Amino acid sequence: MGKKNGGVMMDNKFYTVSLNAAGTKLRIIDQTKLPGKLVWVEMDEIEQVWQAINTLMVRGAPAIGVAAAIGLAVAAGNIRAADFPEFYQQFCRMKAYLATSRPTAVNLSWALERMKRVVLFNKDRELLTIKAALLDEAQAICDEDVARCRAIGENGLPLLEGARAVLTHCNAGQLAAVAYGTALAPIYLAQEKGQHIHVFADETRPLLQGARLTAWELQRAGIDVTLLCDNMAATVLSSGAVDAVIVGADRIAANGDVANKIGTYGVAVLARAFGVPFYVAAPTSTLDIGCSTGRDIVVEQRDPEEVTAHWYKEPLAPEGISVLNPAFDVTPNELVSAIITEKGVITAPFAEGIAAQLAR
Amino acid sequence: MGKKNGGVMMDNKFYTVSLNAAGTKLRIIDQTKLPGKLVWVEMDEIEQVWQAINTLMVRGAPAIGVAAAIGLAVAAGNIRAADFPEFYQQFCRMKAYLATSRPTAVNLSWALERMKRVVLFNKDRELLTIKAALLDEAQAICDEDVARCRAIGENGLPLLEGARAVLTHCNAGQLAAVAYGTALAPIYLAQEKGQHIHVFADETRPLLQGARLTAWELQRAGIDVTLLCDNMAATVLSSGAVDAVIVGADRIAANGDVANKIGTYGVAVLARAFGVPFYVAAPTSTLDIGCSTGRDIVVEQRDPEEVTAHWYKEPLAPEGISVLNPAFDVTPNELVSAIITEKGVITAPFAEGIAAQLAR
Repeated sequence: MGKKNGGVMMDNKFYTVSLNAAGTKLRIIDQTKLPGKLVWVEMDEIEQVWQAINTLMVRGAPAIGVAAAIGLAVAAGNIRAADFPEFYQQFCRMKAYLATSRPTAVNLSWALERMKRVVLFNKDRELLTIKAALLDEAQAICDEDVARCRAIGENGLPLLEGARAVLTHCNAGQLAAVAYGTALAPIYLAQEKGQHIHVFADETRPLLQGARLTAWELQRAGIDVTLLCDNMAATVLSSGAVDAVIVGADRIAANGDVANKIGTYGVAVLARAFGVPFYVAAPTSTLDIGCSTGRDIVVEQRDPEEVTAHWYKEPLAPEGISVLNPAFDVTPNELVSAIITEKGVITAPFAEGIAAQLAR
Repeated sequence: MGKKNGGVMMDNKFYTVSLNAAGTKLRIIDQTKLPGKLVWVEMDEIEQVWQAINTLMVRGAPAIGVAAAIGLAVAAGNIRAADFPEFYQQFCRMKAYLATSRPTAVNLSWALERMKRVVLFNKDRELLTIKAALLDEAQAICDEDVARCRAIGENGLPLLEGARAVLTHCNAGQLAAVAYGTALAPIYLAQEKGQHIHVFADETRPLLQGARLTAWELQRAGIDVTLLCDNMAATVLSSGAVDAVIVGADRIAANGDVANKIGTYGVAVLARAFGVPFYVAAPTSTLDIGCSTGRDIVVEQRDPEEVTAHWYKEPLAPEGISVLNPAFDVTPNELVSAIITEKGVITAPFAEGIAAQLAR
């Protein structure tokens, strides 16, 4: 992966989310400016971190967790307090506030809880020591995320042996994590090892994460990428040009049903129809044995305006029209060829493989 | 269909393309203003008609043919000529010019040739008589289109008996013809007969004909319509909410393979996977026995800007990105449940049914 420089990768590679070189600020790409402009933003005030997460300047479950941890660490570093109780009170206020930036993001509260445990574990030490421990913990959370994504890449790579091209949906790349991403991790790993895999990127309506983010990060990394409208996937998959479909996941039920960005289910059906393997790459934190099947997963319905809003400054649908705008869909396990996690590759029967990975 | 008024339907119904009430001008909806504004435009100069067809103010194969015929008739009505040779020369210049407005539109040249035959058939009569005959012929072309679409609707209606909802892709409705359309004709006929069929309309990227046109015309007609992004079709079809898919066609090969707007193929695969019938509705002029199979149909690749151009005033994909933008795709006949034309319903084996309809 090249040399590190204060958490930011060199060699034309970089961490999407990191501690700055001086170790004093959270450093992120403002993803709301992509693909038009690459804008790096540094911050150390808790309100700025809240804003960055809330307005999707940083998005993607792993990236949010890391940004919250680093953001809380640098903000806590600036707390002026006479003693531990005073420090702890201010720290807890910051933590509670940051947790409201995206309340449903599981990684957010998980990372914040982990930071709090560090404070309590060191409560009898100097405040300066506690502040240093918070920075260390945040860096550890960041490094673990990179290692986890890299492991997903290594586990997925053998499935893509000899592959010339894959198709992906939405953004489960570096921009959703710190480095590598999940679905794109095997592609980046392949590149490191000199294997060139062309990526067909679904634009992913309505919010166009594929067009705005996946196309951008792959192009920047020097990986050949072709953008297509979601409805062109059948043409691409039927042509024989694609050796595999690989996507991320928002949640995976105990039986292997996969909740992911809307449109994933359709791609899975098409992949099956055209004999193309359909892989899901995600960390084990995505495996949710609390959901026995995909039917237990409630699909969020989002604002119709995401579908109908302005296009070339003109509305793109009539006013008052009824709109369907589910945030994701659920792909039944029988359409999934394999689930790739940082612990290995799970194939059918999925329930057993998932339980086994979670038991480790 | 209610009462006629100079070719424009009353009863909240209307002709998309018609001769105005005075019989002096071509009257069309400017479809480039939809769905934001309903703008009717009247014209009698050949340059205006050329512009209207060229800039897609009027689009859809049947609508283009009718607009060209009426446009040529009203423009020819204003020709000042001393004798037939002078009239004929000016008429032919107008006709040749209009043919360049959308060179690949088969209906355009077909309609213009038919108008020329009327001139030649009446060449020994008064110029006023010839001008009147041209208006009559244009009106006949218009009326025949309405009758043809209505026949498609009547032939398709039995296939939708008891149907509560259909899903359609792109716009093969009234806006693509004069009235009724092709894929939407059975829906409008059902409405006339008191059967209420809910329509799920794919938005149809990249040019969003479903969102801009299908959603608009169905909403205006008082038919329940729900707009969805193309990638949501799997969710809708798997839910059991849809009884049939019905689409139009750009061209149908001798074996029943169907070329239609990009995305149609994917919907057909999904329909098959979820056990939903997949119907294609088109006039027999769409049947092309010159193409033995869909492999003989060359798919137009369109400008990448249609996919990447501005969105909320920001580019929606990185500059210089490779883009796939085929105008249509080819659905293999084995995925087609039936082809509905104005002459009846064709089912497998399609080659025989298609040949039989063309022989009639």
